[in-house]
Formats: sequence, C-alpha cells, structure tokens
Amino acid sequence: MTKNRRQFLQSTTAAGLASGIAFSAEPSNVSLKEGDTILFQGDSITDAGRDKKHQKANDGRSLGRGYPHQIAGGLLRDHAALGLKIHNRGISGNKVPDLDNRWQADCLELTPAVLSILIGVNDIWHKLNGRYDGTAETYRDGFAALLKRTREALPDTRFVVCEPFVLKCGAVLQGEWFPDFDTRRAYAKEVADKAGAIWVPFQSMFDEAVAAGTKPEYWAHDGVHPSVAGHALMAKTWRETVGI
Amino acid sequence: MTKNRRQFLQSTTAAGLASGIAFSAEPSNVSLKEGDTILFQGDSITDAGRDKKHQKANDGRSLGRGYPHQIAGGLLRDHAALGLKIHNRGISGNKVPDLDNRWQADCLELTPAVLSILIGVNDIWHKLNGRYDGTAETYRDGFAALLKRTREALPDTRFVVCEPFVLKCGAVLQGEWFPDFDTRRAYAKEVADKAGAIWVPFQSMFDEAVAAGTKPEYWAHDGVHPSVAGHALMAKTWRETVGI
Repeated sequence: MTKNRRQFLQSTTAAGLASGIAFSAEPSNVSLKEGDTILFQGDSITDAGRDKKHQKANDGRSLGRGYPHQIAGGLLRDHAALGLKIHNRGISGNKVPDLDNRWQADCLELTPAVLSILIGVNDIWHKLNGRYDGTAETYRDGFAALLKRTREALPDTRFVVCEPFVLKCGAVLQGEWFPDFDTRRAYAKEVADKAGAIWVPFQSMFDEAVAAGTKPEYWAHDGVHPSVAGHALMAKTWRETVGI
Repeated sequence: MTKNRRQFLQSTTAAGLASGIAFSAEPSNVSLKEGDTILFQGDSITDAGRDKKHQKANDGRSLGRGYPHQIAGGLLRDHAALGLKIHNRGISGNKVPDLDNRWQADCLELTPAVLSILIGVNDIWHKLNGRYDGTAETYRDGFAALLKRTREALPDTRFVVCEPFVLKCGAVLQGEWFPDFDTRRAYAKEVADKAGAIWVPFQSMFDEAVAAGTKPEYWAHDGVHPSVAGHALMAKTWRETVGI
C-alpha cells in the first residue's frame, strides 16, 4: 500500500465516521515540486465571487469563496516549504467555448503544473433556457479539443477534470435536465480518461451525501451553486482524489 | 484514551508528516447537539472581509475569507445532520471594550453553544500608535469582565479563547511590542483558564511553523493579518484543539 493510499484511508475513516459519508475514489500519484503553479478553471462554481481586479496567486480575495480557496488553504499550509502559486481563474457563466476563448492568457501562459477544470453546467443550463444551442456532443468535442490544445502547449501539466454535478432541487427541478445531463457527465469522464486526467467524482460524492440523509438544498440551495458545506465537501474530495 | 484524543493523534500524525509541524494541544470534550449555534468573535483577523449587510448563518459572504469560514466549512460538512448555525461577528479594529459595547446584540442574543473569541492585538497596537491608552491590565480586567458577563447570561455556553498572536515581521517590527505583548498573551491565558475556556495556542502554533523553516511573512505578511495559509493553519489547529 502506498503512503498516499494509507493517508487517504486514514482520512476517509475519520471523516467518514464524523460525516456518515464514505467515498471510494482512488488517489493518484501527483507529487508537487518547489514553485509549482496550480490553476483552477471553470464557471461560477469555481469563480465563487473572486475579485477579478487583481488575480494574484495565493490571495484570499483572488481565490474567491469556494472550493479553490479551501483547497489552496490546505495546500499552502501543508506544503509551506514548496512556495506554491495557486490561481483561481473561474468565470461565472462560462461554458467550454468561453474557456477556449480566454485559454491563452488564463491557462497556457500560467504554465500550471496541475490544471483543474470544472465545466459543463452552463453548457446545458444555457441550452435549456434558450441562450445557447450546443448539444452534449458539442460539449464533448469542445472539451476534448481544449484538452488536446492544452496538452500540445503544456506537455508536462497534470490534468484534473472535475465531474459536472447538479443537486435535484432549485433550478434543476425546472426544465428537462435529464437524461441530457447524465450523457454530458459520461462524456466528461470519457474526455478525461482519453486525456489521462485525474477524475474527481463530484456527482457521486453529492449523491452519497444526499443518500446519507441530508437534503440536496443543504449542499447547493439552487441545485447548482454549492453552499459553504458543499464547497468544503468538494475541497476534501478533490484533495483526497488528487492525493496532494 | 478517549475517542477525541485518538482522532486528534491520528490527525496530528498525518498532518504533522505533511507539514513538518507538530502540536501538542490537548483536545477538549466539546460535543455538538442538533441546532447548535457556533459564534466567532474578534477583530479584523476574525472579520476577514465578511459582508456585514446580511450577517446570515452559514453564508459564504457573511463568514468572510478567514479561519471562521474554513472552520465553518469543515463543521457543516462533517456534521451535516446537526443543522448547525455558524456566525462570524468579528469587526475590524475591535478591542475588548468594543466587544463589550456590542455584546448584547452580537453575542448574548445569538445564544451560542460554542463561543470563540480572538481579541487583543488592537488593544496593544492602538496603544503603540497613540489611539488608545489601555494597559495590559486594562486588557486582562476587561476581558475577564466580558467573560463573567457572558457566563452570567449564558450558563451553558462553551468558551473558546484563542491566543492573540503576532508574527515578527511587517508592522510588528515597528514599535515596542515586546515584552508588553507577551504579558498580554499570558493574561489572556489566565483569563481563559479562570473562565474554564478551551485555549487555542495560536502563538505557539505560528512559532513552530516559523521554526520549521518558513518565513513569518508566509503566514502573515504584515505580522498581524494571516495569509490564506495562516488562516488554514488556524482553522486546523482550532478544530483539533476544540475537538469538533
């Protein structure tokens, strides 16, 4: 058993007892080096109210109020000797083509050692409300092309693809999210696997949390945007899955 | 060995290995009940840019960007079944008399099950820059009176007193902070012990972090206000020490 695997199991045991939730994700073999940059990319869930004026690494305002901030706190605390640089560049409302449009400045030029992407909920939501016409296949192909472009520019970057998720409450009760959303989740996994990315299973994580007895609104009041508790659960699962 | 003690030691082992920092605080016997309120009180370190317009429990904006937010995330995630209500009512610039002035509305009326207070750095800082004339004894006696008043109004509340701290950098290199600051830290401990409070040793925590090889600026650039890493270290130590 590797050290990461052991730490993960210890952590799962203690936290699982406290929360009544158990996960079965397999940790990866990411290891951080001195001066590494970690970049969080995505939509409003990643953005989480960050201050876009300064966009400084490791800065409380620039990191927003969501899972990137909580992950950054833990990583900067637990790897203090490494001088990590952690950025949040999520932008509210973004879909895959929006990431593609700003990818040079907001990803490639930052040369991240670890690139974490959570994208997809607007690709379907904006289609449901008539503001966009991309299909599930548009999402799959665009996401795959974005990762291909990234791999060509950044051969050594470790990719982390976060599973798009919804909670069955709020806005998600209006409109025909299913089965389209499930198709898109499966496509995201397919794209992640083909790109050799680490897969962070946020949908199954929230499904298990709800199955353990909490209301979906507890984790995301509108079904899309996580609560403080939801972001904290995401941060914990991200760190355990990525293994850093 | 109690369950809390066991969990603490496991957690210390894993986290200590990762961060190179070891702590020796003794966990308490706090246990949370359904619907409990947890209140964080203090100055700018606790405030940490919170939105004061709404002041809603468990709300990302209302919790600010500091240790109360990170603790709240962890507690709301790990005790999802309890329906906890977590408030941050720290206000930038506050000293002990400022807390006393707003204590009825900002503490007693919230009837917290757990009350966490971090106060003291402005009581000396504002004296050093000529905006206040309270001595170390003024701080001690005012803090003791505040806790006595609180105990009379809230007989069942568990008190958590956080050790005031500074890092030796930034503003702390200007002016004669020592030995006055150390006297005040000792008084805070004395007040906490007399009130039966749990003591969270933030100064020794940061001292050990610096001794492990990181610059003081890494944890608080101006010597007073913690970085994202500093807040995350505080949150971890708070949870381990309070045992929830």
